[in-house]
Amino acid sequence: MTVASGGVSTAGAGFFSQHEGMLEAAVQALSTRTYKTPFPEIPSGKIYGETAAADGQTAFDGYLNASFVLDQPGSDGEIGDEQSPFGMALGVRYPRSDVNALVSAGRAAMAHWRNASIETRSGVCLEILHRLNKRSFELAHAVMHTTGQGFMMSFQAGGPHAQDRGLEALACAYREMTHVPSEVAWEKRISKTDTETYAKTQRIVPRGVAAIVGCSTFPTWNTYPALFANLATGNAVVIKPHAGAILPLAITVKIARDVLNEAGFDPNLVTLLVDTADAPETKQLVTHDDVRIVDYTGSTSFGSWIEENATQAAVFTEKAGVNCVVLDSVDDLKRVAENLAFSICLYSGQMCTSPQNVFVPADGIRVGSETVGFEDVAQAIVGAIDKLLGDPKMACEILGAIQSEATVTRIEKAAGALKVLRPSNTIEHPMHAGARIHSPLVLQATSSDPEVFMKEWFGPIVCLIATSDTSESIELASRVARESGSITGLLHTTDPTIESNAVAALTDVGVPVCVNLAGQKLVNHASAFSDFHVSGLNVSGNATFCDSAFVANRFRTVQVCRPA
Amino acid sequence: MTVASGGVSTAGAGFFSQHEGMLEAAVQALSTRTYKTPFPEIPSGKIYGETAAADGQTAFDGYLNASFVLDQPGSDGEIGDEQSPFGMALGVRYPRSDVNALVSAGRAAMAHWRNASIETRSGVCLEILHRLNKRSFELAHAVMHTTGQGFMMSFQAGGPHAQDRGLEALACAYREMTHVPSEVAWEKRISKTDTETYAKTQRIVPRGVAAIVGCSTFPTWNTYPALFANLATGNAVVIKPHAGAILPLAITVKIARDVLNEAGFDPNLVTLLVDTADAPETKQLVTHDDVRIVDYTGSTSFGSWIEENATQAAVFTEKAGVNCVVLDSVDDLKRVAENLAFSICLYSGQMCTSPQNVFVPADGIRVGSETVGFEDVAQAIVGAIDKLLGDPKMACEILGAIQSEATVTRIEKAAGALKVLRPSNTIEHPMHAGARIHSPLVLQATSSDPEVFMKEWFGPIVCLIATSDTSESIELASRVARESGSITGLLHTTDPTIESNAVAALTDVGVPVCVNLAGQKLVNHASAFSDFHVSGLNVSGNATFCDSAFVANRFRTVQVCRPA
Repeated sequence: MTVASGGVSTAGAGFFSQHEGMLEAAVQALSTRTYKTPFPEIPSGKIYGETAAADGQTAFDGYLNASFVLDQPGSDGEIGDEQSPFGMALGVRYPRSDVNALVSAGRAAMAHWRNASIETRSGVCLEILHRLNKRSFELAHAVMHTTGQGFMMSFQAGGPHAQDRGLEALACAYREMTHVPSEVAWEKRISKTDTETYAKTQRIVPRGVAAIVGCSTFPTWNTYPALFANLATGNAVVIKPHAGAILPLAITVKIARDVLNEAGFDPNLVTLLVDTADAPETKQLVTHDDVRIVDYTGSTSFGSWIEENATQAAVFTEKAGVNCVVLDSVDDLKRVAENLAFSICLYSGQMCTSPQNVFVPADGIRVGSETVGFEDVAQAIVGAIDKLLGDPKMACEILGAIQSEATVTRIEKAAGALKVLRPSNTIEHPMHAGARIHSPLVLQATSSDPEVFMKEWFGPIVCLIATSDTSESIELASRVARESGSITGLLHTTDPTIESNAVAALTDVGVPVCVNLAGQKLVNHASAFSDFHVSGLNVSGNATFCDSAFVANRFRTVQVCRPA
Repeated sequence: MTVASGGVSTAGAGFFSQHEGMLEAAVQALSTRTYKTPFPEIPSGKIYGETAAADGQTAFDGYLNASFVLDQPGSDGEIGDEQSPFGMALGVRYPRSDVNALVSAGRAAMAHWRNASIETRSGVCLEILHRLNKRSFELAHAVMHTTGQGFMMSFQAGGPHAQDRGLEALACAYREMTHVPSEVAWEKRISKTDTETYAKTQRIVPRGVAAIVGCSTFPTWNTYPALFANLATGNAVVIKPHAGAILPLAITVKIARDVLNEAGFDPNLVTLLVDTADAPETKQLVTHDDVRIVDYTGSTSFGSWIEENATQAAVFTEKAGVNCVVLDSVDDLKRVAENLAFSICLYSGQMCTSPQNVFVPADGIRVGSETVGFEDVAQAIVGAIDKLLGDPKMACEILGAIQSEATVTRIEKAAGALKVLRPSNTIEHPMHAGARIHSPLVLQATSSDPEVFMKEWFGPIVCLIATSDTSESIELASRVARESGSITGLLHTTDPTIESNAVAALTDVGVPVCVNLAGQKLVNHASAFSDFHVSGLNVSGNATFCDSAFVANRFRTVQVCRPA
């Protein structure tokens, strides 16, 4: 712990100069918005070190069936019951902490942190990101065995891509805090001969303690933007992970606390509140009088409850997306079907960006100069899914495992109630016996079945909906977004007028639209520094990763004015 | 109405090129934050034109006892019962409009407006500001005879300073919308030999219809920031003026509708919803499903009701300030008392920035090298008030009139309940018989009377509170801010340690602090482009004029991605 006399940490300042180049490049990337992944996405020993993979495995194994030590206040006993979707019980035991104690400790810890300079706080955040990045293999295992993602996705989305999103939010907060100079000389002519001069100083003042409610599928990716936006702007953070996906956030909290401590700050700026499905503590946390910021990722119903009830706080939500695909006309049906099949299979539709409803005219679509009927379009998609999942090992890597048993029940229920174009089947994982792996269920419905397409079927459940024509497809996709919320939209058309109408209708209701994807880019992907994730313009959420609105309301600029 | 084929208004584009320099300078001023009033604050014929004063008077007289024509939809009959605090009934009759009709018309009008370019929308806003500025004399009379402000203040705060605040919000919105380029070429290397390239376009999408709830004391100054932030970002606006201060906003709405119409847009982008104290319509408006943004200025209780109930909207509030002064030590008591007396008298304490509680140690304060007792400090302040108000004509100009009869009742009640250091007296206005003019009531209490200083006494009511020492004064001022909300703070001390402690304690709870004011600058003044008005960190409000957070949540950036 190295604290200079002015209360400014020299370690914090050192972290800033060490990582300043990365922050500057990130701020720049916010406005160019080209491809950028500051944290390398390839899990290669050449990048991460030859022993990184083995070290990560060892670290992960060390957590199993053991106590996870966090040394945070108000703790009494242990808690935790995570089950890997790949079959095993993790057996990690976390401290059981008291909500009030964590919030109070966070408030107390802010007294020093909020007075540190923007650079010092940003330096600490950059160092946390840097250390998280070095531990990406360890985090990958933790993400994999809580969310059910395949290893590659766990590494990328749980590691570097999550870190990219954290850096993006930090850069955005840094930009917004530095719009205003810290000192200003203000002069006003008050008569022909006299001028009054004042020295104004501006101070960044944080809102207060922040609560982050994590989800079960992307515990790090969905949490890091809020974590770094809050810390950078001077707030303390209590992280409440989903009871089924604690470990990735526990590791994150431990790393953050270590860095804060080394930089001379109170580690209680970042704490972990673990609860269980049987005794949830989220409501108590997010409506706590001293909690002034809430970030939430999860179901629409509980997110809406928070929006309506946590009125003492600034609330940022990412809820569910009922995402639509509009198929009108294509050049190459095979490539389109392959791209769509990958989007459908990736992590078994458990991404909030995964497509669910595929609207196809009952009379079929144009493919080049021909018309291909609805049945053949359906068969092309089903065939592409079958082909993609042909090799069980590859299938398991792409599909991952089903995070929650409730999703398996949902698959069974949907299959029993609707016309099935492709049944869901179970797949044996070559390495993890007992892994919960189910291939996508493809259903068929029509535009007269709103109870099917207006509703979220979370998991590997996709529905092809026969419409009277593409105009109706667009209208329905737009209605789904408006009434049920959509996070992504995919359109295939070779007709510029239809493209323009569909893009207008969908963006009007806050759906970003991918048009004619037929290569490796999937509609599911949202890249930091280029793609805005969730628009906040429909019920799928009220906030965006990452725009000014996501960061600017987490702090205020408060002025002091003195005669010069 | 001049609309180019692409739906982009040529008049709108023309307005932008005509006023672009003003916008650029305003964006620049947001980051330098030095003195800036783009709209001249001196009501001089040399600036505004030799006939401007007379034209303004004539225009105002023309509104009296007549119908105010707005030609907006859903109107049925007339409404309006404004009484000038200077004595006369205005007799202006406004259209009585239906909430649902105005909200629907706003939604419909947005279809074209949101598709206009950022430049076109900004050009229209700049032209509205330009025309408002030319009509500043007319607006001054309207503000004076609804709010009770003296003429000079009505001109400045109701005219150019309000226009400055509108321009500031517009510039801030422009900056935030243009952070992101409209087109991006995005390339990702997908293998050693292959790269995929996508063309991404970003569209600014507004949230929806916005409601602005005006107040009775600063109808234009408190409304323009939201009006221009909303319009610039593509939203429609329904303005609900206070039933006692309609005319300044009716004139504003008329000007905005004229400019919108000339630029080829639907004038229903800006409409006026007039109600009465007996049949208020604010709750219905702000909780309307299609209202997605609410800006409110007014009482804390109703503002808090909106924050808790208008959960379908992004809510921005400016509520009441119980503002404190901490007197510890001064160099020149006379100059300090004169400055404070002016702050107390200006517009009879009816500014949300006016001081209310003056904390003074019971043992007195240091003045230079001497100690001056509490009674003498009190006498210096009372004496300075008496001197400032010595000439009745000047007194009337400074005090203005009391906007609401309820404030007069409050003065009487306070005088009967507490120890009076200076009684409030009525003053005859030399030109307006029947004007409601009451000089400040100065009361005395102690730190054991929280029921006095924790509560807002809106109007010309000031209380000197004897404390055990300056530490207690600081503690109480900080508690008032935290629990009752403060918008401004004033500190007088010659001790650097006390200054630093007080500044920290007050800014921590979101109170901007003026230190040692003894010249013409008053704690009440909040200048556009330099001072942030309301911090949003205590119960005095949740939003600030004007930071990124004030504008960034009024729109989203929605992306379209196509293979290049």
